[in-house]
Amino acid sequence: MMTREDCAALDAADPLASLRARFDLPDGVIYLDGNSLGACPRAALERVRQVVADEWGFDLIRSWNQAGWFQMPLRLGDMLAPLIGAVAGEVAVTDSTSVNLFKVLAAALQMQATTARRTIVSERANFPSDLYIAEGLTAWLDRGYRLRLVDSPEELPAAIDADTAVVMLTHVNYRSGYLHDMAALTAHAHAQGALTIWDLAHSAGALEVDLHAAKADFAVGCTYKYFNGGPGAPAFIWVPQRHQHAFSQPLAGWWAHAAPFAMAPGFTAGDGIRRALCGTQPVVSLALVECGLTIFGETDMRRIRHKSLALSDLFIQLIDACPAQHGLTVATPRQAERRGSHVSVAHADGQAVMRALIARNVIGDFRAPQLMRFGFTPLYTRFVDVWDAVDILKNILDDAAYDVDHGVPPSSTEVT
Amino acid sequence: MMTREDCAALDAADPLASLRARFDLPDGVIYLDGNSLGACPRAALERVRQVVADEWGFDLIRSWNQAGWFQMPLRLGDMLAPLIGAVAGEVAVTDSTSVNLFKVLAAALQMQATTARRTIVSERANFPSDLYIAEGLTAWLDRGYRLRLVDSPEELPAAIDADTAVVMLTHVNYRSGYLHDMAALTAHAHAQGALTIWDLAHSAGALEVDLHAAKADFAVGCTYKYFNGGPGAPAFIWVPQRHQHAFSQPLAGWWAHAAPFAMAPGFTAGDGIRRALCGTQPVVSLALVECGLTIFGETDMRRIRHKSLALSDLFIQLIDACPAQHGLTVATPRQAERRGSHVSVAHADGQAVMRALIARNVIGDFRAPQLMRFGFTPLYTRFVDVWDAVDILKNILDDAAYDVDHGVPPSSTEVT
Repeated sequence: MMTREDCAALDAADPLASLRARFDLPDGVIYLDGNSLGACPRAALERVRQVVADEWGFDLIRSWNQAGWFQMPLRLGDMLAPLIGAVAGEVAVTDSTSVNLFKVLAAALQMQATTARRTIVSERANFPSDLYIAEGLTAWLDRGYRLRLVDSPEELPAAIDADTAVVMLTHVNYRSGYLHDMAALTAHAHAQGALTIWDLAHSAGALEVDLHAAKADFAVGCTYKYFNGGPGAPAFIWVPQRHQHAFSQPLAGWWAHAAPFAMAPGFTAGDGIRRALCGTQPVVSLALVECGLTIFGETDMRRIRHKSLALSDLFIQLIDACPAQHGLTVATPRQAERRGSHVSVAHADGQAVMRALIARNVIGDFRAPQLMRFGFTPLYTRFVDVWDAVDILKNILDDAAYDVDHGVPPSSTEVT
Repeated sequence: MMTREDCAALDAADPLASLRARFDLPDGVIYLDGNSLGACPRAALERVRQVVADEWGFDLIRSWNQAGWFQMPLRLGDMLAPLIGAVAGEVAVTDSTSVNLFKVLAAALQMQATTARRTIVSERANFPSDLYIAEGLTAWLDRGYRLRLVDSPEELPAAIDADTAVVMLTHVNYRSGYLHDMAALTAHAHAQGALTIWDLAHSAGALEVDLHAAKADFAVGCTYKYFNGGPGAPAFIWVPQRHQHAFSQPLAGWWAHAAPFAMAPGFTAGDGIRRALCGTQPVVSLALVECGLTIFGETDMRRIRHKSLALSDLFIQLIDACPAQHGLTVATPRQAERRGSHVSVAHADGQAVMRALIARNVIGDFRAPQLMRFGFTPLYTRFVDVWDAVDILKNILDDAAYDVDHGVPPSSTEVT
């Protein structure tokens, strides 16, 4: 059984250990919610001062060009691309994940418009906003498209058939942590004539996503979780070169135009990923995305995934070793190839237990009815953090030191 | 004829003069481009430090509730509402102007869906992105909707007829500065059975917009011009209470849901303006909007409009007094009730002249083929600034001190 000393030894040998110093983390806090909101890079405070005081305050309007504000969505997209198996010119950082999903789903359905295919296959357990966007889009199109939701990943292959226009999935499930086999599902979808859209919110920056190797068709994702881009930072959208020429989306505003400053009354789509843009972007939030992405340049996704699995393996091992009367059940797949970078643990009083953990500075979150989520972010989480978190959890359960009658949910439920 | 001393006297008597100290403006710069990017409020730097270091860095995920991040779109909307003649619960600050326009245009067309009306009336000179959004939406819906564009404001009344579903206009034209009569056009549109959508990008924060008095149907606008919310700051969307129950839009993500944290797979629209939201918002940029709006709380729109007209009257008078050989022509309506808060001046070498002005620290911008734009933002522009700007312009023209062969456009063309 692993001891705390063993964990300290793992930290001492960890090639990523030095990257923790790139983040501002409050003393004494064990932060296991980077799967929801990534920690703040140390560089962020100076960068935001620069954007607000120098670029906005001093250079004013000139910064659209001088400071590269206008170019940021594509420049940051190029930085992000290699982290998800994309290439330069295929990714833009812009808008929200939901808005970007609307764009790629609209474009994918248009690519299927000449077929009789009318089904969008997804999971009932998908992140709800993704389903809402599909619901809104199909209701508005009013052309007979319908959502077909399966109740478990195992049902997906059979649900993808000759009527499937698009398979729309979140790569890693936000609750269970289940990791889909992107390549296999995409191959199956293509064999059936369907296109695939992947929401990478809970996988990008956490594991080796390889969109091109998987032959995926479209992807979206957020930058404020594993990429540490800041609260609600603009999301990303990926359109591979092979689909860019056919890519057309209804939210094409002036930033998508071939000549945005010509101010022509008619729309002409720009080349490449530019056509996935819409309107003016929130520069201050957007600029901070670079601080998070820069840290990824100091390592690689293979090392990150390796440590992620080591951290979550350790966590699962320690949870499994808890006495049965603690009532803890690991709800995330145990196979490394089937899980992302967070582990969900079921407990009958999960909400109260998570509240007690947060009160003791172990920050995870809770998903009703009984899942406690613990996210393992290799850039700043130590092996001793995992050990200490489980130790504190055990103490809480040993002492039944949690209040199930407390009616207010922990604040950290208010996130994705 | 006004002298510089007269201008200094106007500044000394100006009830808004003290508000200039609320902004960080670089020494020696005469900033006449606040109609494109508002200046930086002094409070912004401390506020952004607080959001990044304290709320994100220290409180982490807890800030979604503790710091009110999740509530910001509606709370800021309530702050903004009285500045445009709206009431609390009708405005959200969220997404971009183009995305918000897509939402209200879709909703308006749906309200007209049971009619045979198929025309969206607008101006060819409208801000292009607004036209692109209408083009994208109508093409995507593919239900026979078409844009009908008029070439001058005078043609609008006749163009609004029994086939008009929606009249979609920008209140103040971004190039000419022409200010539409919102109440009269809305009354005419309603008499013809059409709904009205107003883009307030160049009027909100610059003049007394009264959406309820005008009986307008929907409005959108941006916060980064006259509201000084920061570069690309999230935009606003207005849906009056009388339309909220019927309001439905295709970009309804989880923030629009009646119970976003129930994580239900099916969408149920929330009440009120909440249903105009979509997904997670860029918190850092959003938080800065409050710094700009707070300054408006220290005065009122009547005073702001009064000074705006006084500044632009002065400017027009000084331009008119320039010798004919300077080749300057005021292209903005001279009647106060027909213009916004910027004045466009045509010059055959307008681009080169504006470049020379910027080189001498008079910052306006240029719109092809020959319009120089000068924006007058009453919160921080002084009467002496107007006098000095025209004086420098006259010196440039007297000396022909501009280079028409310079091929690179001034950086400030890269804005709305």
